[in-house]
Amino acid sequence: MFKRLKSIFIGRPLPNEALAGEKYSVFWGLPILASDAVSSVAYAGQEMLLVLIPAIGVLAFGQLTLLSGVIIGLLVLLTISYRQTIDSYPSGGGSFIVAKDNLGVISGITAGAALSVDYILTVAVSVSSGVEQMATAFQFLKPYTVVISVVLVILLMIGNLRGIRESSRIFSIPTYAFIFCILAMIITGFVRIANGYVPTVPEITSAAEPLTLLLMLRAFSNGCTALTGIEAVSNAVPNFRDPAQKRAKTVLTLLAIIVLVLFGGTAVLAQFYHVVPVNNAMLVLIAGQIFGNTFMYYAVTVTTFVILVMAANTAYSGFPVLLSVMAKEGYAPRQLSMRGDRLSFGNGILLLSSIAIVLIIAFSAKVSALIGLYAIGVFTSFTLSQTGMLIKWIRHKGKRWLPKAIVNGLGAVVTAIVVVIIAITKFNEGAYIVVIIVPILIFLMLRVKRHYAAVQKQLRMTSEEISAVDLEKAVYRNRVIVPIENINKASIRALRYAKTISDNITAFTVATDEESAARIREKYALLDTDIPLIVKYSTYRKVVEPLLKFIESTEFDYRKGDMITVMLPQFVVRKWWQRLLHNNTRYFIERQLLKHKHIVVAVMPLQLKDDKTVLKNDQKAPK
Amino acid sequence: MFKRLKSIFIGRPLPNEALAGEKYSVFWGLPILASDAVSSVAYAGQEMLLVLIPAIGVLAFGQLTLLSGVIIGLLVLLTISYRQTIDSYPSGGGSFIVAKDNLGVISGITAGAALSVDYILTVAVSVSSGVEQMATAFQFLKPYTVVISVVLVILLMIGNLRGIRESSRIFSIPTYAFIFCILAMIITGFVRIANGYVPTVPEITSAAEPLTLLLMLRAFSNGCTALTGIEAVSNAVPNFRDPAQKRAKTVLTLLAIIVLVLFGGTAVLAQFYHVVPVNNAMLVLIAGQIFGNTFMYYAVTVTTFVILVMAANTAYSGFPVLLSVMAKEGYAPRQLSMRGDRLSFGNGILLLSSIAIVLIIAFSAKVSALIGLYAIGVFTSFTLSQTGMLIKWIRHKGKRWLPKAIVNGLGAVVTAIVVVIIAITKFNEGAYIVVIIVPILIFLMLRVKRHYAAVQKQLRMTSEEISAVDLEKAVYRNRVIVPIENINKASIRALRYAKTISDNITAFTVATDEESAARIREKYALLDTDIPLIVKYSTYRKVVEPLLKFIESTEFDYRKGDMITVMLPQFVVRKWWQRLLHNNTRYFIERQLLKHKHIVVAVMPLQLKDDKTVLKNDQKAPK
Repeated sequence: MFKRLKSIFIGRPLPNEALAGEKYSVFWGLPILASDAVSSVAYAGQEMLLVLIPAIGVLAFGQLTLLSGVIIGLLVLLTISYRQTIDSYPSGGGSFIVAKDNLGVISGITAGAALSVDYILTVAVSVSSGVEQMATAFQFLKPYTVVISVVLVILLMIGNLRGIRESSRIFSIPTYAFIFCILAMIITGFVRIANGYVPTVPEITSAAEPLTLLLMLRAFSNGCTALTGIEAVSNAVPNFRDPAQKRAKTVLTLLAIIVLVLFGGTAVLAQFYHVVPVNNAMLVLIAGQIFGNTFMYYAVTVTTFVILVMAANTAYSGFPVLLSVMAKEGYAPRQLSMRGDRLSFGNGILLLSSIAIVLIIAFSAKVSALIGLYAIGVFTSFTLSQTGMLIKWIRHKGKRWLPKAIVNGLGAVVTAIVVVIIAITKFNEGAYIVVIIVPILIFLMLRVKRHYAAVQKQLRMTSEEISAVDLEKAVYRNRVIVPIENINKASIRALRYAKTISDNITAFTVATDEESAARIREKYALLDTDIPLIVKYSTYRKVVEPLLKFIESTEFDYRKGDMITVMLPQFVVRKWWQRLLHNNTRYFIERQLLKHKHIVVAVMPLQLKDDKTVLKNDQKAPK
Repeated sequence: MFKRLKSIFIGRPLPNEALAGEKYSVFWGLPILASDAVSSVAYAGQEMLLVLIPAIGVLAFGQLTLLSGVIIGLLVLLTISYRQTIDSYPSGGGSFIVAKDNLGVISGITAGAALSVDYILTVAVSVSSGVEQMATAFQFLKPYTVVISVVLVILLMIGNLRGIRESSRIFSIPTYAFIFCILAMIITGFVRIANGYVPTVPEITSAAEPLTLLLMLRAFSNGCTALTGIEAVSNAVPNFRDPAQKRAKTVLTLLAIIVLVLFGGTAVLAQFYHVVPVNNAMLVLIAGQIFGNTFMYYAVTVTTFVILVMAANTAYSGFPVLLSVMAKEGYAPRQLSMRGDRLSFGNGILLLSSIAIVLIIAFSAKVSALIGLYAIGVFTSFTLSQTGMLIKWIRHKGKRWLPKAIVNGLGAVVTAIVVVIIAITKFNEGAYIVVIIVPILIFLMLRVKRHYAAVQKQLRMTSEEISAVDLEKAVYRNRVIVPIENINKASIRALRYAKTISDNITAFTVATDEESAARIREKYALLDTDIPLIVKYSTYRKVVEPLLKFIESTEFDYRKGDMITVMLPQFVVRKWWQRLLHNNTRYFIERQLLKHKHIVVAVMPLQLKDDKTVLKNDQKAPK
């Protein structure tokens, strides 16, 4: 049943060979990787305004344009920096790899941890913002924003479990539609202003505070969320078709140009049209003023919603790949490095979705509440990655290395300043959560690495050691214990099997009272076998303690080198619900027994026939 | 870690011997078993008023007293009937047993299913009503009633997982306090009326409808919820100390007297004081009028709350015992018949709690909404149980059987009429849910029984069959397959073990490409063994399919009678979190393999040492 459900939602398994075909071209790669950065047009400017307006009123709009200019400057710098990273790291230059290679392990996993946190926030913020856009145009949705956001994350999860290519195709076209709509809005908006349109200025009540530096920096911190998508491209180089690096660089440059035009354009529009995005989405409010209640108004709303969902989807490309890279190096559980049936990293996708859902519920899907946690992680990883590149240029030099080093060095300094700004100005608004969680993640990653190293060391054998092994020399003496509940076909089968693997067999049973002990002894005598039957009484209603006590007793006479095989039966049922009808104590018993180095658990299946058939047909009982 | 948590919340395990000590005396048994019936004073009358007042206004109070009289008559009849049941069934005369013994299996499980549903509703209704009492006195609690109710159910669950005696002791004293408080309220109320007190009559708006029979019957149906606790005593006979039957009968009689006084008394009080319990609890409103804002007002509120929680606790004694009785007869999953570490039926307790929580959330902890589902189940089981007793007297006769038969017969007829009344008058208000669910439960129970019968039949052997078994005759030929990932200490250990149990061994590995295949072949050659290594390529990244394909291929040359042992390694970690770092594909592989009748899975444990120790101490790597 589960299998069938899975195949409906996730699709049928894909073979390894399909992996190459799942890769991006520029046309399909751009929308899926650009959407994160491009979609921030929908909230970065708005959240800057929401900091400024309550304090300084209408003056906010002028400052918005100014700050947007600074952020676009940052964007240009980062784009040039990251083009260099893509050139140097053809197999994916995520901050984790770049920082680890050039700055050492701690820097690498710091970048990895910071970035993981930010991917999760990308999902939470983008989806919440998307729903906010819709609820601005369709106010009746307002009470249901949390539920809708959660459902969207679940849909994204299912889509991504289905595999890379399909998800990119499904989600690609609307991105271009969004770019078109916002461009149309910007142009129409400017044309109307040029034609002498005077917008209705809303009443703005503000505290009329002075414009302090702190205020500007708080607004700036919110605006920096516009740059969170850049990382995705350099991380995803191996997801591109060959020549992968060239394609990735093209996508990165296109992305920067689009953000520049849309982000800058809407910031200027906001100044002209004076929208106050309290509890409502700025873009939709602007569109309402420019287009009125027309088709284009709804087109802007819907495409903005869709690109925000796409932005969340970017994290679904980035997060599982990042974790799989870390997992391959031993810093995260190995399961995260494995592709599933549909060639997607299923475990990473599930992890991302669950944490994002928790955040959405905890922060009631409010963008203004989530934004405080956002961007600090990604700027931390920017800094580490740029510093790593700087060190790389200094160490390895190469053709025209100096200008490149200067670009990356500048990037490192600027982004480091941004990290400090965000950490200080946003500390009380959620950044403290990230400041606490990232070190915890680093600690856990080091522990995981240590565990894998210890396992590796315990298993590893050199070629000399392997050659020295003599498998012919008998090291173990095999002894078998067959726990039985009753004398029936199952126990006979287990005893028969035991006979084939050893000539030192003990049958073992636990009785609750003398009477039942006598009953089983009597039945066992009918077998007329030389295999001894040990009967123990259990005060607790458990099998495992008496069995282990028996093995350790002198009665069993355990000698060094003995390997004890304990047989456990396992019913194999026909229908899934029948599994609920059988005790799962087998797993419990097994786990207790396996704690002992010299016990092997042999599980013997007992295939059950169809209930109806068995009860109808007396002759056909199984042997 | 889980173990430690468990011992904090649940307590340390108790041995079998402790079972006898966990039993009830009259003094401790009365509060725990009586509380269900007694506590209904808190809602049965109130819910009758809530049906009558909107229709007929002040006239409702007179009808309330009348209907309460009828219900008290029913109570007396049922008490006498159930004393007879206790006499006849010393080991617990639950409706399931009585109906099954005398009317057959279908009647028995119908009674069982109906009663299970009612136990669950006892928890949901009692807890919701308890919280309603508190929220009437402390109005600021009103918005949190659902959350508080759910938390209470969870606390009850934990308390009951700790075992019977402790829970009865914890919960006993307040029941007596409740009885004292309500008695004090009744007496004070009457004294004040006798002294000429004239209560403030609230303004009652009603539709001024005629008093129809249907209206009276709907109110009566709600009032019948007062009788839902009676069953618990006869079910719990084996929980009493010897002489158990005598003690149980005493408890039942005391219970009836208490209900009579409290239920009758409060009904009369309601008439004198004219309370209108819309959205508020009747008892607390009456107490407010009689005691004003004094200590006694809060004492009534709190003890009423506590006894309602206790009533929910009654279901925790009844439901798991009922299910364990049904499970022992094969009508419910066997796990429900097993006592846990603390001698309580853990699985039953968990099941009861989860469904009750779902109901509380679904019906927003509203007593008036839940009451529609209530009582129909218990009256169904009353009817079946009484009919069973009637048939028993007629069949087996015995001393003075005729008057006994008449009592039980009368009980059967009257309760059957009540079932019909509730089903008709409450159908739209939730009774239809019960009418649908009970037949589904009956169907499932029959399926479960059929499955166990089929399993039993497939395993059973007669003494002749057992005697005919010749264990010396070799039936199986044992062959071993050792899947290996790499040549390391784990695979060497598995191969060594395989050597001790068979001389027909195959090593098996899955490679993703030629290169890795060559690498493992080269290493394997160093072993210089005659055990063949089979290398297969997997297009999917799975082990199980190639392995099964290999076993079925001519290359493996499977012959009839071959028993194939497949070795699987299992890391045994030191810390619980390390388990998350290892693939749990072993369980998946195992389940796939065990579907094949002739495959035994041998699980070899690999005990890992402490990470720190291993990495510190190079010499001590394990062998």
